[in-house]
Parts: sequence; structure tokens; C-alpha cells
Amino acid sequence: MSKDKINARPEARLAKGFRDIEAQELRGLNEMIVKIREVYERYGFEALETPAIEYSDALGKFLPDQDRPNEGVFSFQDEDEQWVSLRYDLTAPLARYVAQNFQTLPKPFRRYAFGNVYRNEKPGPGRFRQFMQFDADTVGAPGIEADAEMCMLAADTLEALGIKRGQYVIKVSNRRLLDGVLEQIGLSGAENVLRRLIVLRAIDKLDRLGLDGVRQLLGKGRRDESGDFTKGAELSDEQVAELITFVSQPVSQSDMGVVARRPVGEPAQAYQDALADLGRLQDLVRGAGYGEDRIRLDQTVVRGLEYYTGPVFEAELTFEVKGEDGKPVRFGSVGGGGRYDDLVARFTGEKVPATGFSIGVSRLQAALSLIGEKRSQALGPVVVLVMDRAEVARYQHMTQKLRNAGIRAEMYLGPSGMKAQMKYADKRNSPCVIIQGSDERAKGEVTIKDLIEGAKVAAAIKDNREWKATRPAQFSVPEARLIDEVKQLIERYQD
Amino acid sequence: MSKDKINARPEARLAKGFRDIEAQELRGLNEMIVKIREVYERYGFEALETPAIEYSDALGKFLPDQDRPNEGVFSFQDEDEQWVSLRYDLTAPLARYVAQNFQTLPKPFRRYAFGNVYRNEKPGPGRFRQFMQFDADTVGAPGIEADAEMCMLAADTLEALGIKRGQYVIKVSNRRLLDGVLEQIGLSGAENVLRRLIVLRAIDKLDRLGLDGVRQLLGKGRRDESGDFTKGAELSDEQVAELITFVSQPVSQSDMGVVARRPVGEPAQAYQDALADLGRLQDLVRGAGYGEDRIRLDQTVVRGLEYYTGPVFEAELTFEVKGEDGKPVRFGSVGGGGRYDDLVARFTGEKVPATGFSIGVSRLQAALSLIGEKRSQALGPVVVLVMDRAEVARYQHMTQKLRNAGIRAEMYLGPSGMKAQMKYADKRNSPCVIIQGSDERAKGEVTIKDLIEGAKVAAAIKDNREWKATRPAQFSVPEARLIDEVKQLIERYQD
Repeated sequence: MSKDKINARPEARLAKGFRDIEAQELRGLNEMIVKIREVYERYGFEALETPAIEYSDALGKFLPDQDRPNEGVFSFQDEDEQWVSLRYDLTAPLARYVAQNFQTLPKPFRRYAFGNVYRNEKPGPGRFRQFMQFDADTVGAPGIEADAEMCMLAADTLEALGIKRGQYVIKVSNRRLLDGVLEQIGLSGAENVLRRLIVLRAIDKLDRLGLDGVRQLLGKGRRDESGDFTKGAELSDEQVAELITFVSQPVSQSDMGVVARRPVGEPAQAYQDALADLGRLQDLVRGAGYGEDRIRLDQTVVRGLEYYTGPVFEAELTFEVKGEDGKPVRFGSVGGGGRYDDLVARFTGEKVPATGFSIGVSRLQAALSLIGEKRSQALGPVVVLVMDRAEVARYQHMTQKLRNAGIRAEMYLGPSGMKAQMKYADKRNSPCVIIQGSDERAKGEVTIKDLIEGAKVAAAIKDNREWKATRPAQFSVPEARLIDEVKQLIERYQD
Repeated sequence: MSKDKINARPEARLAKGFRDIEAQELRGLNEMIVKIREVYERYGFEALETPAIEYSDALGKFLPDQDRPNEGVFSFQDEDEQWVSLRYDLTAPLARYVAQNFQTLPKPFRRYAFGNVYRNEKPGPGRFRQFMQFDADTVGAPGIEADAEMCMLAADTLEALGIKRGQYVIKVSNRRLLDGVLEQIGLSGAENVLRRLIVLRAIDKLDRLGLDGVRQLLGKGRRDESGDFTKGAELSDEQVAELITFVSQPVSQSDMGVVARRPVGEPAQAYQDALADLGRLQDLVRGAGYGEDRIRLDQTVVRGLEYYTGPVFEAELTFEVKGEDGKPVRFGSVGGGGRYDDLVARFTGEKVPATGFSIGVSRLQAALSLIGEKRSQALGPVVVLVMDRAEVARYQHMTQKLRNAGIRAEMYLGPSGMKAQMKYADKRNSPCVIIQGSDERAKGEVTIKDLIEGAKVAAAIKDNREWKATRPAQFSVPEARLIDEVKQLIERYQD
């Protein structure tokens, strides 16, 4: 083959950072979506679907790891040469929708949404450029009771998915606690906006990098294992020490203890207000019957997204799995959210208080597959074999009759012979195949070959001659009995 | 406000050609998806989800209205500066998937997929840049029985969605019929590839433009109402006449009549083969019980996509709706498909015969809303009113108890007073609100206000004083009876 010819053919490959999802996983995903939706609707949220593409300026730039303009977002020009972007979350499009439809919406506006979001970031193990989020948000609700509700929603959703009490915790903090500490160590004011952002992102990585890593990022910077250097916030040793004290105190059993025990001096007002809010949130969830085993204050939660302005939440799975180095680690975050009172104001100039919670569906599904029973492969379709190509119309009609009776069925459509057909039925996990050769046709019969029973028997029989003589797990019935017999057979194997 | 400040705020608007889908429509969409999936699975297809983004070269360029490179497709560079595109259909990604995973797939490979696809085209009324398709395809099936199955699948799917026999027809033709005519009028050969494509697209527009419009496109070209000129195929008068004869003969009742009655000379071999295939397809579907009222041959079907190589199908709704000019027109196409034997070979060089059917979900939903009964708005959540802000924890707990009993409920989360709360509940279509003021609390009671009954009574009562005196459609019950009473009330209003 000439080189030209080779070059003329594209390589069949997925775009980097993307993946295909196959039937077995999609079945699980679909069941998850149904369950999550059921809980979100029970909480009074209404569905909304916004498009995958928005004008870039309408989405804004709030991604955690986005230091250069446009980094992290897939952006391009439409045919009118306007810049558009793929949505990187479901919250920014919601803010656009609310600002656009503010007059006609019920207030508060409570919506849920699920769908894929896109990040133009470096992919890694389990980290894809397209992934699904499932969000609930209340827009136009200033009170802490709206935040408390988000925490309860998160807990109820995880339990509806089969995660047991004790296997998860909803951790709550308030972004303004950190603001208060920053104010106290002289980092408030417009001139420090970038440094505050670096601090935020550093603390958000506490789980992954540990205290030492965070300390480096608060100071001069940090070099990772690959040799890449991330510039730090360049705080003074005293400032770093204050922040490390803030995040490193163990969470006390009395919930409020740790966040109240500030290291030095009189806490800033923002800090005191945030504390009071958290106290009220705690009262509300406790009053509704959610104990510390389900919803708990934890000042280390800050969330990496820039737009949060108040309470922030993180849904964490607490059971251990093997980490990349083989050592056990907590499974970690499967969702989060918080209050973002300024996002609609970006458009309208008017403050519209809002709070929300978002589930990372794919990551949660990975978790469920670790703790659930192994899902057995679903039964495939009944396969009607083509024994005689001249009789295809007859097999097709038989197949159609099975389908009309609600039975999953297909006629073998490939070009190959008997052996390939049986192999195909095996690969599809078919419960049985239907055979009608000329002998059966003459007698008005069909043969049903039970593949599941057949596989068991085959394991027990060693002698090929014995096999051929008995032909186990297959039986002939009058063609008129076909549907009833197949129904019975399938019922036997359905759980 | 300074001009700078105004400019700093983005306008809250949808990107051109995109739309939001709200709760009522999403409910219908979700019901459709469930029903279509049920039929596709019954036919033995397995789910597959490929990503929205693929390498541009892997998708190829097969869009009907795409004359300049990249026109019609949203394309951009990823962070490695490789060109990627948003998928414009679900077939091109399937070909990539099959070529990539050929060794491990069952053969034939039967998959269904649904999801949004994207076209960078001029949007119009009802024509959006993001829309949903729901596809089934069989890859590795060379025989006409696979195409016959697609036609039956299409018919069964439409009926499962509530479209009655007689309201739709699946029209079938074979791309090679047209190839045969083109050969006969001297348009075969590599030098005529572009002209053949123009002919294809011209005939595909027959429904919309009529015979005269097609005739212009086959000749010098056509100027539309907006003044835009589309260049034609520049065929000779004789060539145009042949093609017009081919598409304009009325479809005879005897199915095969019209396509067999070719205007002049000895039909080309391609034409004869295509005819024979269509005859076999007809035998198969008739044998399986599908009459001419459901599946019918029609040589005017060609499908605009370039990649089809054999039988092509179109699902058409036959009832009339008001056209843009107010005159009645047939609703028209809601899906289609055909055989594309060369699409996998683009990657592998090896021919892998394939055929598929695709539903335009959004368009079909529009059709269903025209013929179905008007859907009543779904019942909203029960709203627990906040009568006393100091008692928020109590209302929250009440709400949570309703939810735990499976009742859709929420506490009012806005900042406003009684009037706004009632207005909110009305807007959400709530069946009732729950009221507990200090009086009720002292007595251990709650008041349930039935909003649906209340609206009826309000229409009958004219006197405001009478209203205030009787307070119709509301009643008090002991708090312990809350859940039972609300359940009864909701059951009364659910259909």
C-alpha cells in the first residue's frame, strides 16, 4: 500500500480525554438518573434543560484551574464569528437563564438539570473532558434555610442511590469564614484578589496534597512529581501559619467547637456572621432529623470555584478504596455546591441570592460499582437463527411475532453460518435461540435451545459423543406454542 | 450609570439558534425517550453513548448543505491544537466506534443511541443548531432483511408513541435507483461526483420546493424568496427531463409499478439490482404483516446525506397542519435512514455493510403535541408557608416529613410575605399549601388550603365579605394527620 493511501484514511480513535459508554454502564447510569430525579422532584425542583453551547461572555470564567483566559473551556466562533463556548458547568447557564427570564419565573425559582459539561483540561485517570452533572438550585432565596435544604437533599439523594448511612457525609462550611481569616491577616481589598484566589485553590487541594503541599502553595510555590512548578501566593510565614492553623485543627465532636476556636485576636465581622449562619444551618438540619453522621460542619471545605459567596457543601464518601499507590484512601468527593449570590447580578446588576448542589454523576457511579453487588449482565435478545436463507421471510415473521408479544428478539442478520450464529447468541448473552430447519418446518415445529441451562450442562458433560446423543437443554414445540414457551424460559432466568 | 459599566455586563441571551427546554416539554420528551427505547430494545439493540466531541477527520464531512469545508459543523482546536468537531449526527461516531473496536464486538453489532447533535447552520423557525436524534443501527449485516427490519422498527416506534395507523407512512427507496438513472444519462464517473451530489440534494428538496424548484436546481440554479442564489447542476434539458420523469411519476397502487416503469432505454444494472432489492424488502415486510398503509415504496425518497449506498427510508407523518402561509401542508418527515456500506471502510479499508434509522426527536415531539390531547400541567409541589420566621425549623421539619412520605413538597424559601407565598404556590400549580400560624400551633393543628378546589369556588363567589367569612376549601386537622390528609387531597387531583 502506498504511503498516500495510508494517509488518506483517518485513524479510528476517540478524541483525547473522551470516552465511549457501553450498554452495561449506561443501564446503571440510567437507573441512577431516575433515582436522583425522583428525589430532586420530591424536593419541589422543576426540570430545565439549557443548551450545551452559550456565548462565551454569558458563561463567564469561573473555573478553578483557569489562570490564562479561555483555559479550561472549549471555545470557538460560530458562523457570525461570535465567540461561543461549551458549558463547563450547569450553574453559569442557569444564571443566564434566570437573568433572561426573570420577570416570568416563579420566585424563588427552583430548578434541577442534568447533562454533560465539558472541560478543556489535561485528562487523567478517571478524569475526562466530558462528564455528567446533576444539579438542583434555588434562585431568589436569601436565607440559610435554602442552604440547609441543599444539604438534606444531598444526603437523601445519596441514600436513595443505595449509599448507606455512615458511608457518606455532607460537609458544610462557609466561604466567609476564610474571608474573615484573610481579612484578619491583611489580605482583603481589591489589590489582593489574585492572592486570595491562589489561597482558595490551595486549600481546596488539601485532601490531595496534604498540609505540606498547601503550605508550599501558600508560600513560594510547589513543584509536583512531574517537575511542573505552580507559583504560590507568596504569603509571609505568619500569614501561612494562620491559614494552616485555620484548616488543620481537628474537627471537634461538638460541631461548632473548632470553627469558633480561632487562633489569635478578635475574629473579623465576616467570620462571626459566617459562624452564626452555620449555627443556624446546623439547627435546621438537626431539627429536621439529620444527625452529625450525615451533615457535619468542617471548615476545611472551601470549594475551588470562585463564584461562591457563603455556605459551601461537599458530599464525601467515607469508605476506603485502594489509591494509585495501592494504599487505602477515602473515596472522597462526589458532589458539592454552595451559595453564589452574585452570579445573576453579572447580567442584571441586581443581586439575586442563590444556592445549589451538584452531583458528579460519573464519579458517583464509579463509587456505586465499588460498594454495590456486582451487577449481572442483562439478558440479551432471543436470537432466531437463519437455517435456510430462502426462508428468511419466515424467520423474520417469527421474530416479529416474538417482539409483538413484548419479547426482546432478533433474527440473525450476519452473513455467516451456524457456528457464527451460536457464537453471536452467546456473546449477546441470549437466553435462547430459535431453530427451524426443514425437518422442524415439515412437522410445524420449532426447536428452542436454552443457552443458560446449556452452558451449565456443557460444563458437566465431558464426552462429545454423549453431548451429541442427548442434545441437552433443547426441546421442540409446535410453532403455535413458541411465544408461551419462550416467555416461560425467560421468566425462569430473570431475577 | 457610565457607559463603561454597561459594557462590563454581558447581555443575558441564548446563543443564536439554541433554545432552553422547560419542565412541561421535558416531561413529554422524557416519556418519548422511554417509549422509543423500549421498542429499540425489544428489537435487540444495545445502548451505546459516544462523546459529543470527536476528531474532525474521524467524523468526515457528509452534511447535506455543506459545500465549503467545515461548513455546517462546529469545529475548533483542543489544547494540543488538534481539530475537533461537535458531532453532527450519531452515525459518523458509530462508524468510528465500530472501526476502533471491531475485534471485540459481536457481529452483527446492533446498537441504539440517543443524544444531541449540532449543526453550524443558519437557524430558522423550528430549526435549531442543537437537536436530539434517536438512532438504531445494524453494522455487519449485508442483507436486505436488515433494511426491512429498520422499516418495521420505524413503524412500530411511531405507533408506540401514539401515532395511529394512517397518520404515518414509512417510505422506502434505493439510492442506487437514482444512480442507475444518472448512469444512463451519462453522469457516472469520478468527474461527475459534484454534479451527482447537487442532483441528490436537489431531489431531496422535492417536498419543500416542488418540481419547478428541483428543475431549476438541476439546471442553471435557483433564486429563493430572500434573493439568495443556489448554483444548479447545469444539466442539459434532456438530462433534466429524465430526472424529472423519474421523480414525478405518481406512485402506483401496485407498489413496484412505478419504479419499474423507467422512461427510456434499457435500465442500467445498478437500477435493476436496486429494484430487485426493493422487491425483496417488500416481500419481507408484507410477510411480517406490514401493509402498504405502513411501509411503501416511493422512488422520490433519496435522503440528502452523501454516505448512503443502498436502501433509504423516510418516516413521514401524513396528516395536515397549517403551513407558514396558513395553507394546509403535510407534516412531513420525522426521521429516516438507510444503508451506508462504506462508512467503516473509511477507517479500515475493509467494507463493513451497515444500515440504520434515525428519529428526529424534537420534530416528532412537535408533531405529537399537535395530534395528542392537550397535556394538562403537572401538579406542583405542596408548599409549606412560612408564617413566622422564628419557626422556620418547624416548617422545615414538616416539609421533610411530607417528603419522607413520598409527597412532593417544599417550604417557601423567598423573602416575601403571605401574598407572595400564595402567588408562588399558584404559579407552581401546587395542589395545596400548608399553614400553621401561632393559633394553629397552640392547638397542635395545621390548616390545609386546597388551591384547586379554592380556584373553582373563587370563580363562583363574587362577594369579598362572603369569601372572608366562609374561607372555602380550607380546613384544619391535627398535625399528626397532616400526611394522610395531604395524600388524600393529592390523589383526588391526580389523573
